[in-house]
Amino acid sequence: MPVGSLADRYRAVRARSEALCQPLSVEDYGVQPMDEASPPKWHLAHTTWFFETFLLKPFATAYQPVDGRYEHLFNSYYNGVGEPYPRPRRGLLSRPTVGDVMDYRTLVDRAMAPLLDREDEEVRRRVELGLQHEQQHQELMLTDLKANLGFNPLRPAYRLDLAAETKAAPPLGFSDHEGGMIRIGAEGDGFCFDNELPRHRVWLEPFALADRLVTNGEYLEFIEDGGYRNPAWWLSEGWATVCAKGWQAPFYWRERDGAWLEYRLGGEAPVAPAAPVVHVSGFEADAYARWAGCRLPTEFEWEASAVGLDPNAGNFADDERLHPVGGNGQLFGDLWEWTSSAYGPYPGYAPLPGALGEYNGKFMSSQLVLRGGSCATPRGHVRASYRNFFYPADRWQFSGIRLAKGSEPAT
Amino acid sequence: MPVGSLADRYRAVRARSEALCQPLSVEDYGVQPMDEASPPKWHLAHTTWFFETFLLKPFATAYQPVDGRYEHLFNSYYNGVGEPYPRPRRGLLSRPTVGDVMDYRTLVDRAMAPLLDREDEEVRRRVELGLQHEQQHQELMLTDLKANLGFNPLRPAYRLDLAAETKAAPPLGFSDHEGGMIRIGAEGDGFCFDNELPRHRVWLEPFALADRLVTNGEYLEFIEDGGYRNPAWWLSEGWATVCAKGWQAPFYWRERDGAWLEYRLGGEAPVAPAAPVVHVSGFEADAYARWAGCRLPTEFEWEASAVGLDPNAGNFADDERLHPVGGNGQLFGDLWEWTSSAYGPYPGYAPLPGALGEYNGKFMSSQLVLRGGSCATPRGHVRASYRNFFYPADRWQFSGIRLAKGSEPAT
Amino acid sequence: MPVGSLADRYRAVRARSEALCQPLSVEDYGVQPMDEASPPKWHLAHTTWFFETFLLKPFATAYQPVDGRYEHLFNSYYNGVGEPYPRPRRGLLSRPTVGDVMDYRTLVDRAMAPLLDREDEEVRRRVELGLQHEQQHQELMLTDLKANLGFNPLRPAYRLDLAAETKAAPPLGFSDHEGGMIRIGAEGDGFCFDNELPRHRVWLEPFALADRLVTNGEYLEFIEDGGYRNPAWWLSEGWATVCAKGWQAPFYWRERDGAWLEYRLGGEAPVAPAAPVVHVSGFEADAYARWAGCRLPTEFEWEASAVGLDPNAGNFADDERLHPVGGNGQLFGDLWEWTSSAYGPYPGYAPLPGALGEYNGKFMSSQLVLRGGSCATPRGHVRASYRNFFYPADRWQFSGIRLAKGSEPAT
Amino acid sequence: MPVGSLADRYRAVRARSEALCQPLSVEDYGVQPMDEASPPKWHLAHTTWFFETFLLKPFATAYQPVDGRYEHLFNSYYNGVGEPYPRPRRGLLSRPTVGDVMDYRTLVDRAMAPLLDREDEEVRRRVELGLQHEQQHQELMLTDLKANLGFNPLRPAYRLDLAAETKAAPPLGFSDHEGGMIRIGAEGDGFCFDNELPRHRVWLEPFALADRLVTNGEYLEFIEDGGYRNPAWWLSEGWATVCAKGWQAPFYWRERDGAWLEYRLGGEAPVAPAAPVVHVSGFEADAYARWAGCRLPTEFEWEASAVGLDPNAGNFADDERLHPVGGNGQLFGDLWEWTSSAYGPYPGYAPLPGALGEYNGKFMSSQLVLRGGSCATPRGHVRASYRNFFYPADRWQFSGIRLAKGSEPAT
Repeated sequence: MPVGSLADRYRAVRARSEALCQPLSVEDYGVQPMDEASPPKWHLAHTTWFFETFLLKPFATAYQPVDGRYEHLFNSYYNGVGEPYPRPRRGLLSRPTVGDVMDYRTLVDRAMAPLLDREDEEVRRRVELGLQHEQQHQELMLTDLKANLGFNPLRPAYRLDLAAETKAAPPLGFSDHEGGMIRIGAEGDGFCFDNELPRHRVWLEPFALADRLVTNGEYLEFIEDGGYRNPAWWLSEGWATVCAKGWQAPFYWRERDGAWLEYRLGGEAPVAPAAPVVHVSGFEADAYARWAGCRLPTEFEWEASAVGLDPNAGNFADDERLHPVGGNGQLFGDLWEWTSSAYGPYPGYAPLPGALGEYNGKFMSSQLVLRGGSCATPRGHVRASYRNFFYPADRWQFSGIRLAKGSEPAT
Repeated sequence: MPVGSLADRYRAVRARSEALCQPLSVEDYGVQPMDEASPPKWHLAHTTWFFETFLLKPFATAYQPVDGRYEHLFNSYYNGVGEPYPRPRRGLLSRPTVGDVMDYRTLVDRAMAPLLDREDEEVRRRVELGLQHEQQHQELMLTDLKANLGFNPLRPAYRLDLAAETKAAPPLGFSDHEGGMIRIGAEGDGFCFDNELPRHRVWLEPFALADRLVTNGEYLEFIEDGGYRNPAWWLSEGWATVCAKGWQAPFYWRERDGAWLEYRLGGEAPVAPAAPVVHVSGFEADAYARWAGCRLPTEFEWEASAVGLDPNAGNFADDERLHPVGGNGQLFGDLWEWTSSAYGPYPGYAPLPGALGEYNGKFMSSQLVLRGGSCATPRGHVRASYRNFFYPADRWQFSGIRLAKGSEPAT
Repeated sequence: MPVGSLADRYRAVRARSEALCQPLSVEDYGVQPMDEASPPKWHLAHTTWFFETFLLKPFATAYQPVDGRYEHLFNSYYNGVGEPYPRPRRGLLSRPTVGDVMDYRTLVDRAMAPLLDREDEEVRRRVELGLQHEQQHQELMLTDLKANLGFNPLRPAYRLDLAAETKAAPPLGFSDHEGGMIRIGAEGDGFCFDNELPRHRVWLEPFALADRLVTNGEYLEFIEDGGYRNPAWWLSEGWATVCAKGWQAPFYWRERDGAWLEYRLGGEAPVAPAAPVVHVSGFEADAYARWAGCRLPTEFEWEASAVGLDPNAGNFADDERLHPVGGNGQLFGDLWEWTSSAYGPYPGYAPLPGALGEYNGKFMSSQLVLRGGSCATPRGHVRASYRNFFYPADRWQFSGIRLAKGSEPAT
Repeated sequence: MPVGSLADRYRAVRARSEALCQPLSVEDYGVQPMDEASPPKWHLAHTTWFFETFLLKPFATAYQPVDGRYEHLFNSYYNGVGEPYPRPRRGLLSRPTVGDVMDYRTLVDRAMAPLLDREDEEVRRRVELGLQHEQQHQELMLTDLKANLGFNPLRPAYRLDLAAETKAAPPLGFSDHEGGMIRIGAEGDGFCFDNELPRHRVWLEPFALADRLVTNGEYLEFIEDGGYRNPAWWLSEGWATVCAKGWQAPFYWRERDGAWLEYRLGGEAPVAPAAPVVHVSGFEADAYARWAGCRLPTEFEWEASAVGLDPNAGNFADDERLHPVGGNGQLFGDLWEWTSSAYGPYPGYAPLPGALGEYNGKFMSSQLVLRGGSCATPRGHVRASYRNFFYPADRWQFSGIRLAKGSEPAT
């Protein structure tokens, strides 16, 4: 997707973050519906902080910070930069106001302008990283906002003009893959995160991957079969979570008069049986797969299956649905797909030097890898080697289930 | 203070709530800095809900609720009305917006107009209760807002035009009171809350009450004497709180370069030695009193001392300081004064009938009575028999310390 | 009850603590079923620590502590002595063993012997305090042990030879008291705790006190009327507790096949309708009283009613029932009776000097006074002015409900 | 290690569990020092429950359970058998007494006798599983007991007659391994757990593995370099744990007068610089490795290095040290070695059928694999393919650090 000059891309990405906020009322910018979900205002400021901290301060001569206190306030988790403002308190900052943050963006963008044309490899690398970072936050802005609006008893829509579409769900099929020695990780000259490297060999046993995501209708069968009441389907931690949180259905479902409703960014609507089930945790994905007599794929199986496909062909945020459409064929877009792989370093993994090394590597414990991008991901942001990661109990992301099976061990 | 017609007073009180919000940015209306402190928007809506629920629904023929969901959303704690929206989540409601809430106020005010002139004793009683209720929330709006702004690392001021004044603190003296049989509780025809009744007799031993509040300078001596590190001064629960929360000074103090700063609604400023110490908990007040060789007064000692004084003569919110001025003489205004009395029912206490009975009575456990009103209380709202109540660990209110001593037991 | 020489009484009280443990297996000595309830072994050691700390160390020349580490280990809450071992971890001390603790008792008793005959007023005062202290712990030993055994799924009995008896419950009547000026607090030369002093005057409005405790049968009506599901009957904190803890009945009740069983120290048995309801919290007592159209008495009403009665005439631990018998007439024994009075200092209250001052005074917040002693209290330990105190949510003590009503306010 | 008949081995393993308890006082059998660590009595009962539940009930005709309530009480986590008694409350069971549990063991052993000679493949498989299970609990009994005694302020020794020995630590060296296609998982006819299967191929990049464990002396350098105060070395969750728990050194270390002491099962002793550092969490192991410029090995690198070594040659529980000796060469024994591998299923993994399927598989989330056995593991229990697993924050096991490095990625 890197088309146009770096300066052009900078302007486009930065503008998109602001465009995403157009439908918001001022009040919406500040709400943090849960510890993990940040307010839109914070996302707008933090992405700006990223450029200020990693580009302007080290590379722009005589740059004066917009406000010295922002270094603390909008630091997410970079201990190398200083102690971050506590994450669970991001929703308590009525000041700086939305206007102040927009000014912050403007001033930083203005100061960035000269850097964008500079022929400095490190500068260009960091600008690219900053843009990829901002794209990640564009998706988080949507998922965090969905939690804000979706758990408001008024269930307001983010936008009423979103395309609403569900493709028919064909019978579930599986594609066989013969396994063998495959190459895993990013290749080529394009941008990738440090966690996609080094490219390396992995031996795979034969496996089969489902040709579409699990649908709401299928997931309802699991619910109606008592799936949430039977510990036999669940990992031990998963069952503890089900009991502690009282889970009975996906995150945004609620039952009204015997029917299931689902909150979407376009508003609340009946659950569509043919649409992919969305906002399930890794524990739910794993339990469903076990109930269905299958399992989740590993991240390597997923990547082996995705290599060669067009990563920009699916349902992405640019399609202005912000909800999965289903149908079959496409591994990219629609929903992030839970894998059974714990998020860890590839052999020989080396994080970026300095504080930027905290970007990815320090989260390599207790999380699972998700693959493929979603209907809230900017088109062009993901690729076959792209690794997203969340805790197995998380379910506020656009996450779904693709089944795998049939790995016949060769001994 | 009831001057003018009920309709006039209604308009004046309602207008004042909105005037208090004039200095706010839209972002400030939504923040809930801690579970106990509600956002300004919520206060504006809940006080309106009170009139809608207890006046319009039962008494205004053909009244149509502004939004049926507000009954749940803006119910504070009246289980008799229905299950309230959870208090700790009040800060998560970006919708209804500030504009929506202002519309709610306008529509309810419009519907209230005919009721205000009606010659119905119950209606008039409830309107009066609603106005007193709104005045209480005007003070809470200020204290809750102070917590919002005061714990923002940017320490923004609520208003920069507040009068800043500290009177000289005369040497601490005590006024003797001979005790004996006194009458406690509200008398006369004016408004009072149910918890001020029935008026009844209490026998008091002789006592002496300090003629001014404890100052910052005096409280600093306690700090410098290791007051926060010595369990000998503290109630057992107080010491547990000091340890658990790491208390080392009053709520809004912080040390910078060896000097103490204090956040005020006018902004952060050096602690003024002569000004009354403010934002101390009941535990701190009690510990200080013990350290000083005194004790806190009982609520009856306080009331016995206050009878006959002009309750409107002190430093109230109308004086636009929103900070205590100190000096001596005045029991009313400046700061709510912690008493050693547990908040409980007077002999023969009867709560109001119906859901309104939940207004006061159900909080009669584990709290202490505070007396006298503060610099954030509307003038005319308090009287000698007025009982405020908070948990002994609470310190975000404008609360201070008045010492007592010398009760010689007569056996 | 102080009969015989101080030395005789010392031996008798000390021996009784050990006799209470006769029915135990070694395993029972160490269990701490909840944070508030200590293991029997700890009680045996702590009461010994009290004599070692407050008598032997200051008064016995050349006394060598049995084990220097016990000062920390068996300190309950006397910060003046040093930092106590954390209370919630008392059940984690497998060492010192029961045998070690018994040796500790023996060695301290031996060292105490010379002091018991010394004609030193302060020594005699402290010995008496130590004995009263040990009697209090004898009751706690039984209530804490009941929690241990009662929440063991095996429901083992403490003793199988306890007298099991329930008197018929006469119709509920009320005794009128005209109120007026009464004297409250300990009088005479006998032992009393500092919290019973100074004796002072209190003015009482007329009231009526129930002539017996509330029975299981009556309490069942409250349950069956949905008492635990209707917030209207509860204080706000009480209702929060009911919801958070899922209370549906008194502490030791459980439903089996549609019938209520109750754990007693003699084993599990069907709930006897005529027996007094026991192991209810202050919140439950208050809610029941409100449901019954009555209220709880104040501690002064209770004391005014109890003056002149024989405090040793009721059902006490010496009667070897360890369960209430009911019937009417008797204010003392059977069950501690919740009052509506917050536990606080009497006018002119002065705690004992030094670390002993921590005995009572520092608990004067957030607790309620209970009066009268129980079937687990040693006979002779209580009197009309005796003040016990627990948090309103506590229910593992032998606590019950006596109703009051009818205070006609005289203005 | 399976030598002798199954019946012989049954008697030997069962007897060893009891022998491990010989040094205990009765009081020690009941203590649960933390939620994860069970009392010795519970281990003795639960291992017996295993035979009763999975052998006697299904296979012994006319078997009558010793006590029907034990099914609930001593079920660890087998939801398929019924709802287990809550784990954090295991230390609250003073009954059944130690004697009762010993009787339980005797009665079950007696009933098991005929089964041990039966020629039934499933019976023999389950007996073997039960013995392996009991061996695992023998190690847990020691580690849990260590937590009990080690956190008792008296620091009592488990045994005073343990061999105390530390070998000299040679300079740290690394053994190169060329990687390539290796076979992972159990092979041969001997017993293995389901999580060691299926045996399958894994591709390894070249790597180098340290030839001995990290020593206390080396770990002290990390501490003295501020390792516990610098977030740069830690995984994000690890740093959060360090801060939340206040970690400053390994689990059983404490500083006294400037020197580090370490609690061992033989009592407290100065930290020996040459001995392997023990009782570090996975987070500490990972942070140390990063600080040292290395990394932890993967479980596959470990297994590839261990194949062909004698798994019974190291320092095991049978050597009666119960503490690591260090020196070099040996991958087995001394300490469980943290790997960087998340505990997950091998390709084609199938749990055992029925409730026994809950043995291993349901824990495959958020845990790390440890390899090699420890000084508390019974000799003969482990092998190259053996996978132990704990949460990365756990540190009460005998866990240590072996460094790896140098995986040069081949692309």
